[in-house]
Amino acid sequence: MVVKVYGPAYASPKRVILCLIEKQIDFETVPLDVLNGEHKSPDYLKLQPFGVVPVTIDGDYKLFESRAIIRYYSEKYKSQGTDLLGKTIEERGLVEQWLEVEAHNFHPHINNLVLHLLFSPLLGFPRDDKVVEESEKGLSKVLDVYEERLAKSNYLAGDFFSLADLSHIPFSSYLFNIGKEHLIRDRKHVSEWWDRISSRPSWKKALELS
Amino acid sequence: MVVKVYGPAYASPKRVILCLIEKQIDFETVPLDVLNGEHKSPDYLKLQPFGVVPVTIDGDYKLFESRAIIRYYSEKYKSQGTDLLGKTIEERGLVEQWLEVEAHNFHPHINNLVLHLLFSPLLGFPRDDKVVEESEKGLSKVLDVYEERLAKSNYLAGDFFSLADLSHIPFSSYLFNIGKEHLIRDRKHVSEWWDRISSRPSWKKALELS
Repeated sequence: MVVKVYGPAYASPKRVILCLIEKQIDFETVPLDVLNGEHKSPDYLKLQPFGVVPVTIDGDYKLFESRAIIRYYSEKYKSQGTDLLGKTIEERGLVEQWLEVEAHNFHPHINNLVLHLLFSPLLGFPRDDKVVEESEKGLSKVLDVYEERLAKSNYLAGDFFSLADLSHIPFSSYLFNIGKEHLIRDRKHVSEWWDRISSRPSWKKALELS
Repeated sequence: MVVKVYGPAYASPKRVILCLIEKQIDFETVPLDVLNGEHKSPDYLKLQPFGVVPVTIDGDYKLFESRAIIRYYSEKYKSQGTDLLGKTIEERGLVEQWLEVEAHNFHPHINNLVLHLLFSPLLGFPRDDKVVEESEKGLSKVLDVYEERLAKSNYLAGDFFSLADLSHIPFSSYLFNIGKEHLIRDRKHVSEWWDRISSRPSWKKALELS
């Protein structure tokens, strides 16, 4: 069965694509013209009632919310491809902890930066420099905590690559498109971590789908 | 081993307390004076580097982020107390989906309402009526989707109580303290769902800890 991934091949859907590649799961993308509001069309709202991307369909099993999808496929195919959940329940606990940190501490700031500095002209809303400034400050503080954490282990949840790291990749890569890579490069351990996770073959493959 | 829960016995820590009661896990709370900034003290920052509550300590295993903690204890004690993760990997996928919806669609709006209408005098910041109005509108739209979903099953992830439902309880209960219970009561299936989940003995016990 080929998993269908609804959404454009960037931003949150890329989190799912990257996971499916790491797990060696066959998939196909179903493009969606988000810039022209296709994610708010009646047909799409039947798949995802909140009108956001991505959605996956696997036979008759439908799932939305990127971080729920990556947990599901990592568990369903636990022993296939890269194990992304840790070996023990305690390791998985730490994967969950840093995945939540990504969602609640890291993502809101980086999402604002990317929205205002990269997507605002495409989406047709004005860039708000105050939001940009506050988001950069907020992201800096979060990355200071990451720097301390990554001085102690190669990856966020320990010495193994996991969903917690993977979930950071798509949006972090945009920092290099918007002239904000210093947020990563000015921090030794964050910078080494970024090189470690972004040089994985899975990310190179995912980029080819853009 | 008794699990220590750091944080005041309300808001996000209550999510954890409720889960531990459902799972029949012994715990004790370690109060923290959040209103006077104890969560930003150097000692607490050693436990939780972002300065937010809760944190659990179980022997030498420390975990933060309430939704990571409830996943961990639900998995570690899968067959003890209420099963909160679903019986199959597919059911767990749906639990994860609605837990993510709670975190990303539901929580930001209800958190704003509760902050501005309940906690702002205690925390010493002015209530912003525009934020209140927009958050109420946002929450209404989310609950419209819930209404449709809950017309089809008794609980969010299906016909079983799970972390997805549990995670809504602490903040939803505040709607009754701030005169916004109509958001629940005006929707037949949401209202029945609320009665179903808030009448559980675990929530009554959790309230006694306030």
